[in-house]
Amino acid sequence: MDVIVITGTPGAGKTTVLNKAIEMLEMRYDVINYGNEMFRVAEENKIVNDRDEMRKLPPETQKRIQKLAAKTIAEKAENAPIIVDTHCTIKTKKGYLPGLPKWILEELNPTAILLVEADPEEIINRRSSDETRMRDREHVLDIEDHQQLNRAVAMSYAMMTGATVKIIKNHDEKLEDAVRQMKDILG
Amino acid sequence: MDVIVITGTPGAGKTTVLNKAIEMLEMRYDVINYGNEMFRVAEENKIVNDRDEMRKLPPETQKRIQKLAAKTIAEKAENAPIIVDTHCTIKTKKGYLPGLPKWILEELNPTAILLVEADPEEIINRRSSDETRMRDREHVLDIEDHQQLNRAVAMSYAMMTGATVKIIKNHDEKLEDAVRQMKDILG
Amino acid sequence: MDVIVITGTPGAGKTTVLNKAIEMLEMRYDVINYGNEMFRVAEENKIVNDRDEMRKLPPETQKRIQKLAAKTIAEKAENAPIIVDTHCTIKTKKGYLPGLPKWILEELNPTAILLVEADPEEIINRRSSDETRMRDREHVLDIEDHQQLNRAVAMSYAMMTGATVKIIKNHDEKLEDAVRQMKDILG
Repeated sequence: MDVIVITGTPGAGKTTVLNKAIEMLEMRYDVINYGNEMFRVAEENKIVNDRDEMRKLPPETQKRIQKLAAKTIAEKAENAPIIVDTHCTIKTKKGYLPGLPKWILEELNPTAILLVEADPEEIINRRSSDETRMRDREHVLDIEDHQQLNRAVAMSYAMMTGATVKIIKNHDEKLEDAVRQMKDILG
Repeated sequence: MDVIVITGTPGAGKTTVLNKAIEMLEMRYDVINYGNEMFRVAEENKIVNDRDEMRKLPPETQKRIQKLAAKTIAEKAENAPIIVDTHCTIKTKKGYLPGLPKWILEELNPTAILLVEADPEEIINRRSSDETRMRDREHVLDIEDHQQLNRAVAMSYAMMTGATVKIIKNHDEKLEDAVRQMKDILG
Repeated sequence: MDVIVITGTPGAGKTTVLNKAIEMLEMRYDVINYGNEMFRVAEENKIVNDRDEMRKLPPETQKRIQKLAAKTIAEKAENAPIIVDTHCTIKTKKGYLPGLPKWILEELNPTAILLVEADPEEIINRRSSDETRMRDREHVLDIEDHQQLNRAVAMSYAMMTGATVKIIKNHDEKLEDAVRQMKDILG
């Protein structure tokens, strides 16, 4: 069965688009948040007690948990189609961390990768809940960079797995367009 | 012997540039269209009867044919240099499909990947044969995206194989420049 | 121990930023130039006598030296953290050559990849030592392309290894910002 990966930088509206698309579908997907699944697996294997500990794990342990989580998801996909909610890249102090490195892709074997995007200005507005909205030039360039790097890394995920990469623009006042596009792919 | 991959979105003028460059060369290349080779291999192995059936094959069969075609091409390259005419990505309803996923690259082992590009407006004009030329903004952005994603995926092909990636701009009224650049690479 | 890869197109100011950041660090890194290390390994193994011969080696020999150099660096990293000074891509007549193809990454296993960038105009100015500074449009686009392709290939390196990718802008009159960012990553 299909494993479909859904990604989007915070503020792009990934979850909103996904939930609305799923409501309209006949097909039943299991939606799995990859971060949650990693924590579940780590807890089950007595590697951590709480979520905070996840971040402090040595790289090799983290890699092992990532693989285990991917394997569990792939097993579930034998029975039902799965949507994996995760990140193309995660912006950290050390730089952009790939959400789906090789060892995850090899277990997960996604058939499609969806990137929900919006204009940087739209993302900045959606992220800010208060009056003081930052729309400075540097911030816009940062989000532009992030989305560009997400695209680049998504294409390397595609090379590795053969998955299709679909970009879904979720512009303000155009949510229905984004939902329809996602629905068409989830089928 | 070299296996050189030539790609370009429809309307970029890949075939025109290639044919003109080949005319000027002393070296003799076998030019193989990857799609045709896949069909030939599938027919020979009694997997399909006609071209239409190619699209309806289950993913695993498709992958097997892709590998077989790549292997056949690599074998031919033992005797003569080969040019493989194919797509960096194919735009489908499900998103951008990588033309050279890992399992093809591993068999094919290209030494160079050539991307023939043009400006979106030029591509739109070349694609439209009638009077009503669509030059709307959305269309331009689509082609921009496609070419950007082609570049990104080409770089992941390069990482995988060590192949060089050459971008050849085929602008209107500048065909000779594009031909000369391609000729210089084909040697 | 960490292996951190530092790259930057000529004129981006990679070495200046690196040296200033290292001065400020408590941690002691071994800084290894990947090209030099390749030459050292090739000489030691009696494959070449001088640096000129490096370029004329058959691809398979080159690949073997690349692997050996990467292996040597990875061994050194068992004792001390290493900074590898190299290229994301090298611009050649045949196109952009990836600096860290798969077989190097597999030995080297970097934990972070740093891209030092600047605006094309800044790079052009820094590259030209004489009065006649070329700032023509084509040149600017070339450098833009190069930096874009460097980012794309860096993301495929990240997919392959799990390394983070950090972009450090080294703008004119803003060297301290670039140095501080690099210092923060090198720790």
